[in-house]
Amino acid sequence: MQILIEKIKKEGQILGNGILKVDSFMNHQIDPVLMHEVGLEFARVFAQYAPTRVLTAETSGIAPALSTAMALKVPLVFARKNRPVTMSEPFEAKAPSHTKGGIVSLMVSPEYLVSSDRILIVDDFLASAQTLVALAKLVEQSGATLIGIGTVIEKVYSNGRALLKDINVPVVSLARIKSIESDQIVFAE
Amino acid sequence: MQILIEKIKKEGQILGNGILKVDSFMNHQIDPVLMHEVGLEFARVFAQYAPTRVLTAETSGIAPALSTAMALKVPLVFARKNRPVTMSEPFEAKAPSHTKGGIVSLMVSPEYLVSSDRILIVDDFLASAQTLVALAKLVEQSGATLIGIGTVIEKVYSNGRALLKDINVPVVSLARIKSIESDQIVFAE
Repeated sequence: MQILIEKIKKEGQILGNGILKVDSFMNHQIDPVLMHEVGLEFARVFAQYAPTRVLTAETSGIAPALSTAMALKVPLVFARKNRPVTMSEPFEAKAPSHTKGGIVSLMVSPEYLVSSDRILIVDDFLASAQTLVALAKLVEQSGATLIGIGTVIEKVYSNGRALLKDINVPVVSLARIKSIESDQIVFAE
Repeated sequence: MQILIEKIKKEGQILGNGILKVDSFMNHQIDPVLMHEVGLEFARVFAQYAPTRVLTAETSGIAPALSTAMALKVPLVFARKNRPVTMSEPFEAKAPSHTKGGIVSLMVSPEYLVSSDRILIVDDFLASAQTLVALAKLVEQSGATLIGIGTVIEKVYSNGRALLKDINVPVVSLARIKSIESDQIVFAE
């Protein structure tokens, strides 16, 4: 997706150790025009599989997933990391926390993930893929059908895609970063 | 906002102690069509004050705030409760946590909140108003101008509006709930 790649080239900051800071348009500030285009693109790719709901994890997945849900006109469900008083006994899967360290639980209420659903998972990054695997486990627990996984930015060098092989659904990333050199972001084909 | 009021009447669940569960369209699952309308309505009300950024707090504020930012075509910034490795020394204000109990810090990087900004705060609920006050403090720390506060649902009976009086900007809620009886939600005029 060319406008996304241009945005990463222009505003992405290389912090070392393969860390890419995209806080100016995705992880802290959100560019609404870019995010709208992201949603349209995921809808274009995945509409053919007739998803009934979009699933993501709080927090950074919500923006691209909501934009996608708006384009597809299907509900968005975001897995929660803390259980509010309003939540019924949830489906639950563990994933490592990127901001807090350690392990967090991702929880979805069975009210909003049912066996007749066809689920599209959307998240901001495909890196280690462990959050995506946890989201796929929630779908499995519900008996719903997973129809695809869409991520905005893939860090190809983190090899997360290998972990998703057994899930056997289309995995689409809108920008694929092959490597991050000291001062340059190298995109995959 | 009539379609929101209808939605609350139809899907809002009364859990006792003034707790209203709106997980089916706002706090866990999100109705993308309704959320699109929410954004258009906030844009209609606040565009006249020429906001340059929309500010909210993770997590439940992100959906209505993103939709509003999309309608206004200005960036959205969401205050974070955990400081990621990518964040510069942030502006910081304390607020009570609804899901975890205790107090959380709301943090915004000075890169995305600057003195020339005209800020519209958007959040899901106006209840105790303490999260909104914390967001207003972040705006004040940055030297930016706060131009208004928009919330999707106001619990009038929680009296949060009184706490916002000194801030002296328009405070607009799209649905105002006067009281919650044992089995009935009573809306204000």
